Amino acid sequence: VPLTAAGRRFCALAEEHAVAAAARAAECDREGRLPAETLREMQESGLAAACVPERFGGGGVDSLHDLAVGIGRVGRGDASTAIALNMHLGAVWGLTRHWRAAARRGDGAAEPLERLLQQVAEGRHLHCVAGSEPGTDILHPLTEATPVEGGWRIDGKKIFGTLSEVADLVHATVRVREPGGADFIAIASIPRGTPGMSVRGDWDALGMRASGSHGIAFDDCFVTDAMLGRHGRWGEWNRRVLEAQVSGNLGLLGAYLGVAEAARALVLPGLRTRRKAWSGAPLAERPGIQHGVAEMEIALASARAMLGRVAMLADTFFAGPPPADDELGGAHSLMREFQCAKWLVNRRAIEVVDQAMTLSGGSGYASGSPLARLYRDVRAGPFMQLFSPNEAFEYIGRVALGLDPEVG
Amino acid sequence: VPLTAAGRRFCALAEEHAVAAAARAAECDREGRLPAETLREMQESGLAAACVPERFGGGGVDSLHDLAVGIGRVGRGDASTAIALNMHLGAVWGLTRHWRAAARRGDGAAEPLERLLQQVAEGRHLHCVAGSEPGTDILHPLTEATPVEGGWRIDGKKIFGTLSEVADLVHATVRVREPGGADFIAIASIPRGTPGMSVRGDWDALGMRASGSHGIAFDDCFVTDAMLGRHGRWGEWNRRVLEAQVSGNLGLLGAYLGVAEAARALVLPGLRTRRKAWSGAPLAERPGIQHGVAEMEIALASARAMLGRVAMLADTFFAGPPPADDELGGAHSLMREFQCAKWLVNRRAIEVVDQAMTLSGGSGYASGSPLARLYRDVRAGPFMQLFSPNEAFEYIGRVALGLDPEVG
Amino acid sequence: VPLTAAGRRFCALAEEHAVAAAARAAECDREGRLPAETLREMQESGLAAACVPERFGGGGVDSLHDLAVGIGRVGRGDASTAIALNMHLGAVWGLTRHWRAAARRGDGAAEPLERLLQQVAEGRHLHCVAGSEPGTDILHPLTEATPVEGGWRIDGKKIFGTLSEVADLVHATVRVREPGGADFIAIASIPRGTPGMSVRGDWDALGMRASGSHGIAFDDCFVTDAMLGRHGRWGEWNRRVLEAQVSGNLGLLGAYLGVAEAARALVLPGLRTRRKAWSGAPLAERPGIQHGVAEMEIALASARAMLGRVAMLADTFFAGPPPADDELGGAHSLMREFQCAKWLVNRRAIEVVDQAMTLSGGSGYASGSPLARLYRDVRAGPFMQLFSPNEAFEYIGRVALGLDPEVG
Amino acid sequence: VPLTAAGRRFCALAEEHAVAAAARAAECDREGRLPAETLREMQESGLAAACVPERFGGGGVDSLHDLAVGIGRVGRGDASTAIALNMHLGAVWGLTRHWRAAARRGDGAAEPLERLLQQVAEGRHLHCVAGSEPGTDILHPLTEATPVEGGWRIDGKKIFGTLSEVADLVHATVRVREPGGADFIAIASIPRGTPGMSVRGDWDALGMRASGSHGIAFDDCFVTDAMLGRHGRWGEWNRRVLEAQVSGNLGLLGAYLGVAEAARALVLPGLRTRRKAWSGAPLAERPGIQHGVAEMEIALASARAMLGRVAMLADTFFAGPPPADDELGGAHSLMREFQCAKWLVNRRAIEVVDQAMTLSGGSGYASGSPLARLYRDVRAGPFMQLFSPNEAFEYIGRVALGLDPEVG
Repeated sequence: VPLTAAGRRFCALAEEHAVAAAARAAECDREGRLPAETLREMQESGLAAACVPERFGGGGVDSLHDLAVGIGRVGRGDASTAIALNMHLGAVWGLTRHWRAAARRGDGAAEPLERLLQQVAEGRHLHCVAGSEPGTDILHPLTEATPVEGGWRIDGKKIFGTLSEVADLVHATVRVREPGGADFIAIASIPRGTPGMSVRGDWDALGMRASGSHGIAFDDCFVTDAMLGRHGRWGEWNRRVLEAQVSGNLGLLGAYLGVAEAARALVLPGLRTRRKAWSGAPLAERPGIQHGVAEMEIALASARAMLGRVAMLADTFFAGPPPADDELGGAHSLMREFQCAKWLVNRRAIEVVDQAMTLSGGSGYASGSPLARLYRDVRAGPFMQLFSPNEAFEYIGRVALGLDPEVG
Repeated sequence: VPLTAAGRRFCALAEEHAVAAAARAAECDREGRLPAETLREMQESGLAAACVPERFGGGGVDSLHDLAVGIGRVGRGDASTAIALNMHLGAVWGLTRHWRAAARRGDGAAEPLERLLQQVAEGRHLHCVAGSEPGTDILHPLTEATPVEGGWRIDGKKIFGTLSEVADLVHATVRVREPGGADFIAIASIPRGTPGMSVRGDWDALGMRASGSHGIAFDDCFVTDAMLGRHGRWGEWNRRVLEAQVSGNLGLLGAYLGVAEAARALVLPGLRTRRKAWSGAPLAERPGIQHGVAEMEIALASARAMLGRVAMLADTFFAGPPPADDELGGAHSLMREFQCAKWLVNRRAIEVVDQAMTLSGGSGYASGSPLARLYRDVRAGPFMQLFSPNEAFEYIGRVALGLDPEVG
Repeated sequence: VPLTAAGRRFCALAEEHAVAAAARAAECDREGRLPAETLREMQESGLAAACVPERFGGGGVDSLHDLAVGIGRVGRGDASTAIALNMHLGAVWGLTRHWRAAARRGDGAAEPLERLLQQVAEGRHLHCVAGSEPGTDILHPLTEATPVEGGWRIDGKKIFGTLSEVADLVHATVRVREPGGADFIAIASIPRGTPGMSVRGDWDALGMRASGSHGIAFDDCFVTDAMLGRHGRWGEWNRRVLEAQVSGNLGLLGAYLGVAEAARALVLPGLRTRRKAWSGAPLAERPGIQHGVAEMEIALASARAMLGRVAMLADTFFAGPPPADDELGGAHSLMREFQCAKWLVNRRAIEVVDQAMTLSGGSGYASGSPLARLYRDVRAGPFMQLFSPNEAFEYIGRVALGLDPEVG
Repeated sequence: VPLTAAGRRFCALAEEHAVAAAARAAECDREGRLPAETLREMQESGLAAACVPERFGGGGVDSLHDLAVGIGRVGRGDASTAIALNMHLGAVWGLTRHWRAAARRGDGAAEPLERLLQQVAEGRHLHCVAGSEPGTDILHPLTEATPVEGGWRIDGKKIFGTLSEVADLVHATVRVREPGGADFIAIASIPRGTPGMSVRGDWDALGMRASGSHGIAFDDCFVTDAMLGRHGRWGEWNRRVLEAQVSGNLGLLGAYLGVAEAARALVLPGLRTRRKAWSGAPLAERPGIQHGVAEMEIALASARAMLGRVAMLADTFFAGPPPADDELGGAHSLMREFQCAKWLVNRRAIEVVDQAMTLSGGSGYASGSPLARLYRDVRAGPFMQLFSPNEAFEYIGRVALGLDPEVG
């Protein structure tokens, strides 16, 4: 449940949109189509402005805990819609945080951020982040920004660009080469329609089919100096990437928890009412059913608890004064907690849907069953950044052992 | 590995057919179409006659262990094809067993069975069993056989009728009402084209889409007296149903093991050769990859061991003299072992495919990836008769505790 | 971390006592002896009065969340001491709740409770609850209270009477027979030294050896009318038993979480500093160690999250207005959450200690190793009331399915 | 079940000795004392000569499968006795294998081995292997053999020297330094009573307390040239170490499987007969009990299957012609299967005992309960060589990925 007033308003509104998201889910899944109409409605209702400060006309949601809860409410209706919304809201939450820091510092950096936030508040802009690339990792983007007259030229290829086909501004991580080899990572913010940027329309996966997670190609794509912000050293952890990975991805856990809750809600009513044809005995009285339901309850409670805990830890972390840029201990400590939660929430969500599938007695395995869609959707969670299970254990172990948290 | 000479020939032939099965798998999955051409080829090559005694021109495969191994070989190519083949071979294995018993007794029952087996040996007939019905269980079929002039009228509805669209003979479990309430279960064997039997063509599931597991309706469908055989009391365990459920379903475990092996074979080569784009480091050297591969190896070894053990136990059981009809202890004991194996093999197969999916790093999640198909296919296993996980634990526990093995 | 000011004071004090508890743990474990001196010190410092309202001179800890955290702090030092303390504090917490209700009602029931609480505040009294009996369950006590002149005669036998050897007041559940068969459950509060009550001194278990969980025999043991309070119908759930089972047992989860934290704290430093003798390579750099540590971290985070969540739910429940006595829905709902948490926290705590044992590389398996004691101690958790894993799944499943939550 | 005639005789005899082993188990556990009398009886009955060829008067057990089954039979009675027996029999099995190879070669190496085997056949000698050392691993022994007049001087320290206090010959792995740095591993065979060898008597662990797994110190301890055999390069895998680690340790899995079987046998009868005191309802009819029993059955069946499979693979491997010394592929492949089995059998055995503990309802947690002893004993399995879980996953993963199977 949401903990702040802004969060409560956000969640209530999210629940309303979840109804439409659910109604469109089957069709969008079949067609592999992003429900652009749902996102437009979210811009109109103000849901898409949830993370813009109230002074700019936004919803004022600061709490990542409440953000994740609200994303989860949408996720109960449709997970693809939920992660698309999270892509935008996570980016906006980050902009708000940068605006706050800039406003505190009083330098000129606040003004352009203010303008971006107002455009979101007015329902005019959707943002997306393009971080993943094939064959490399988050600290080593291979998309390059090369200095040219008045700005930069971007060349490279991103994948998993959720929401990219309707995004008005794409924030892509890029590598900027430096003479001495001390390359750095920057964020290039590229407006929709910029020549050279093309959204591929190639997302066609087992699940999350309505998330529009297309590849994006940058081919000699120009951005102004103002639209490129340094992040840190290429290939090294820095505070901003750690923070962005936690704040931007926490909502995803909410989305997958929402899928698990939806699976439970789909299967329980039938177990309560259905009876064996030959004896009239209710299914609910069968020991195997009761045991399976109990396992589902425990897994679900555990996922909720874990998400709630890490989200509160994140709120505490971000409420504190920002540490020095070279003081990464606290951020790694938060990231470790996030990694524990990410692995567990995704795994438990998969198990809950799997258990619901078992409890459905086979009806959930039919192609047209909503449960079959949830079964496909929920499996995407572990792949999402940062980290996959192939890397998470090494990271968690290294941080806990006090080693340099570099993952192979 | 197969243990008998007949089994070795069967497995070698199965591997050949697996190539064609694999080549057709993607298309048949997409279209939800049974690969009838593969089954025809299996009839032509003699694979479909594997369980017919050699004296009738069959392959002489007696060993259920070797039958399961061979089904597994096909399952490596395509699981739908494998369970369709198992449906037929399991039925024929049972006919052979009945023929043997009848021949020993020397009564007239052997002759019609002999004819059926010869038709299979000549590649003319495919068999299928129709046991499942919605809302009831294996001991309480609701499809009824009513006595009429010269035979019986069959009315009712079956589901999960794998292979039914091309089967020449459908063996359906039915209920025969008796005046005093002592109803019994019988098997009605209904030839293809019998008026009143219609195969629905309605199989459309998350996975195993090429298995043609359609519903079958019987509407005033006539069979002769000769085509209806008593099985035992309606609602009670009897030796034949226990034996048929083990012998007919052991091959399914082979099929799902084959899926797990295929998933492993899909993912390992890439892990050995792929490298990180920015550093050239091989994926295989990453600790998380090595750990995940090890978990996959253990799960796979465990599934193989469990299937091998229960199949050898079944061979020992069926090699012994048939116990008296009212002596079910040995059959329940075997069924308990089979239930342990069924649960474990299905669960481990699911885990192996899931782990392969994780190790694929996301590429296996693409809609067109063979791994995505395996992920959908392998989930069917636990639903297959007898039992689902909703019932298996109760059955195993009751047998181990010496209680009446009746499951709610 | 504690959430209230009273809780923070309680936890700080608990940490101080944990030092002495830890110092005495090995010896008390070896001798199977309750560390009575530690409990005396807790009475002297005021820790034992933590749950007495501040107006009576107590610590004013209302929050069960904070109570569990503080018990966990003691549990890090010694689990036996922690569950002994929880036995007393849980009982006192319940008395305070009853006193509040009585004070609100304004009847005479408040006064004797006030006196009991003051005695605790003055460090004079320790309480214990005696609920368990061999071969029966919490709703069906077989110890009987028979009416006699001026009071009741108690006869029967209790087990697992943690703290009983030093308790000044033993609260035992008893059965009172009624003519029409509508027996009820009551609580008989029996002062130390009452003739006919004998503490057996027979606690000798694999672990938790210093908890003094002896059997207690009641043989013609007299209590006055004032010392017997009705609880509800014998054999039926009632609100007071549900509430008492949650509030009295939540702290136990804290104790077992403390054991897990202690195991982690024992093993991590060595992994950070130890090196292979032949190569000098640090153990921490080994992939298997990192993976094992990560699994330990996830399990521990999950246990913490689950306990934190259910404890906050309990605080919310108990902060609300007490529901009508025949309205059990909310209490069962809380109990279901508690059961999910109890199973999970105990299981994860066992796994964390097991993983620490593995990571110790064998040194933790030595008889004198503190880890070996933790390994024995932590296994007690699942046995503790209410419920054991033999019953918990049935209860959780039945409540989730909307069935009568009666467990066989 | 044993597969060979020699194996059947061995197992039948082992079952007889298991009775005495069981009778002494509690006392030897309490006192931490090796049951030397049981081992003497095994020498007298010929059980200790099981792995000596029949031509020398031994039992002629070649099959490692049957060896493991027989060790398991003893393990049902007492696990400490079983691993002590396995220590001796595994060493003798290896001597027999070396004798066979030497006899085939026809060189003089056969004769001394023949003499050793005859002494075992006559019930005069017990052997033990001393491989483990603190802080290093099997490929890097730090105990050194230094050349001296007529032989070698041994200096160093071994741990986990099961059976050492009664062994007549201790086979210790040692390092022999070579000038160029190409050190090698050798086996020094040291007769009981050799000056400078002292068995410490320091084994005092959580479980397996009767296995006498003491430390052994070598201090200027002389052996003749004849008693030192080269094994391979120090720090590198070689065929003999791989083979010895599989053949010597397979029996340990049998011992831990025996513990699991004993735990099941302890708990089932009570579940069948005990009833709730207030209702008379049998425990066996409770759903939670049935589910727990089913989990125990599956875990046990899985452990049996896995041990059976790897033992048959080992028999096939050792029945084949020995590969060239530099051809390690087959041996690593077998070792990988063994590692999968070792991890799984040990883990499942732990789970079975844990589940039996849960099902005991608390009675198994009493200090004097045999189940409590099994709970302590079974936890030793994962620590035993080769590998612990800290290393096994890395090894399995590396072999499966085709990497150099060197574990950090």
